[in-house]
Amino acid sequence: MRPLDRVHSALEEAAAAVAEEMERLLPDGDGLEARIFEAMYYAIMAGGKRLRPFLVLTSAQLFNVSRESALRAAAAVEMVHTYSLVHDDLPAMDDDDLRRGKPTCHVKYGEATAILVGDALLTLAFEVLSDPLTHADPEVRCELVQSLANAAGAAGMVGGQMMDLEAEKLALDIGAITRLQRLKTGALIAYSCEAGAILGKAHEHARHALKAYAHDLGLAFQITDDLLDTTGNEKDMGKKVGKDAGAGKATFVSILGVERARAQAKVLAEQAAGHLDMFEHKADLLRDIARFVVERRN
Amino acid sequence: MRPLDRVHSALEEAAAAVAEEMERLLPDGDGLEARIFEAMYYAIMAGGKRLRPFLVLTSAQLFNVSRESALRAAAAVEMVHTYSLVHDDLPAMDDDDLRRGKPTCHVKYGEATAILVGDALLTLAFEVLSDPLTHADPEVRCELVQSLANAAGAAGMVGGQMMDLEAEKLALDIGAITRLQRLKTGALIAYSCEAGAILGKAHEHARHALKAYAHDLGLAFQITDDLLDTTGNEKDMGKKVGKDAGAGKATFVSILGVERARAQAKVLAEQAAGHLDMFEHKADLLRDIARFVVERRN
Repeated sequence: MRPLDRVHSALEEAAAAVAEEMERLLPDGDGLEARIFEAMYYAIMAGGKRLRPFLVLTSAQLFNVSRESALRAAAAVEMVHTYSLVHDDLPAMDDDDLRRGKPTCHVKYGEATAILVGDALLTLAFEVLSDPLTHADPEVRCELVQSLANAAGAAGMVGGQMMDLEAEKLALDIGAITRLQRLKTGALIAYSCEAGAILGKAHEHARHALKAYAHDLGLAFQITDDLLDTTGNEKDMGKKVGKDAGAGKATFVSILGVERARAQAKVLAEQAAGHLDMFEHKADLLRDIARFVVERRN
Repeated sequence: MRPLDRVHSALEEAAAAVAEEMERLLPDGDGLEARIFEAMYYAIMAGGKRLRPFLVLTSAQLFNVSRESALRAAAAVEMVHTYSLVHDDLPAMDDDDLRRGKPTCHVKYGEATAILVGDALLTLAFEVLSDPLTHADPEVRCELVQSLANAAGAAGMVGGQMMDLEAEKLALDIGAITRLQRLKTGALIAYSCEAGAILGKAHEHARHALKAYAHDLGLAFQITDDLLDTTGNEKDMGKKVGKDAGAGKATFVSILGVERARAQAKVLAEQAAGHLDMFEHKADLLRDIARFVVERRN
């Protein structure tokens, strides 16, 4: 199999396993509040590449973590990612009607329910991680919770979203955009790689290597996102394109131009792969995914 | 000092200590995202009775928990309570402009920021609980995280909020309203009492006693809330009153009438106090707070 085909089939396999795990973990019932269970399911099952859980599973494999532990941590990360999309799509935020080719959660269930769906998914992620089923060692579970909260909160993803809202009023330079994206998307991607190391009680230097990899991967991912927003089409993307340019927002592409942005993403992907030398051939799939991230079309 | 005066001064003392602790725990900085730090501070420092952190501190005292541990857990509970108010006040939810006599978070900072403030406070609560500073034993920290997530999520508070939204379309009976309130406000109040027992590694029967106390206290609290919404005035309450009746929502008062609701709240408060026999005089303050909860005017 060629490397990119191998990535595709590994992504698909991981996506199916994580979807199954999330289905097991999502709440269910027929009380008066059943609407939220249905809406959580809708948001989670809307699909997507499931890149973050894939990174959890793949980094966990480096340290021989049990499949159940890795799947639960992967599901938790995807819940946090999904909550962030549900809230980000709200009318008061990005006001998106379409996500992965389907009506967004608030379009389907109304704004109030969508707000609650995000809240419930975020909360569920921490409930899953702190559960003894995720890992026998409570120290490991606490570290998973603490690192995820740090990556997802005001010092990470939510802080990045706040910067993004503020950025609409300002002309950002490349340094500010890099920091914005490091918080907005980079922190959760970095956590996804770190989670495998936490679960495997990996040595500090292994953990640093994975974080350095994830840092470059996250930026490469975001630059490619900006490129796709400029050059992609709505059918491939399953969502509106050209929104950032339309809103006059500074992006990697608006500052660097298409060609330099594309070159930069490729350099970052190579650099990301380079951080994994210590894992030798065990990290081939992580290296391949770095290349996949900049060559994807949606 | 008379019991109610004692409660008042204990509440004030706890409120000041928890506010100070939260101020220490809230993020700060002058980056592009500084607006969210400011808005989190605004939401947290808007005040309130701080009943939930008071319950954490007071139940922790039963088991000789260190002051630092109790304060951190108390701060985490109040962060979750505050996040739920910020989201609940949003235009798509209850659409409230006034909270504790001040503009609500979205009125002051806009809807997008208010959504992010809620998200960040919820996330921060879990970061605080999982931090080794909260308790030396990671098993205790995991249990704090897991129980809070359970109380706050779709099986608890968020589920109750979903029921509340659905209830606007339905004529609920007393059983349904009791379940709704047990989830919407009862679960977090119960957790507040349980947190002290978790921190103190209390025996199962002590924990059950506190949960039974909290269950009755939570209902008494909610019935009194409904009474104040009917009979209180906006000045004392610091928010709009009569909203539920105006919206045609079934409440304890609309079903039981003012007199029976008042009597029921009193019975529940006495019943709550009765669950604490095993703690003898050590639980006097918890008994007093049960009486305070049904006699308060805001």
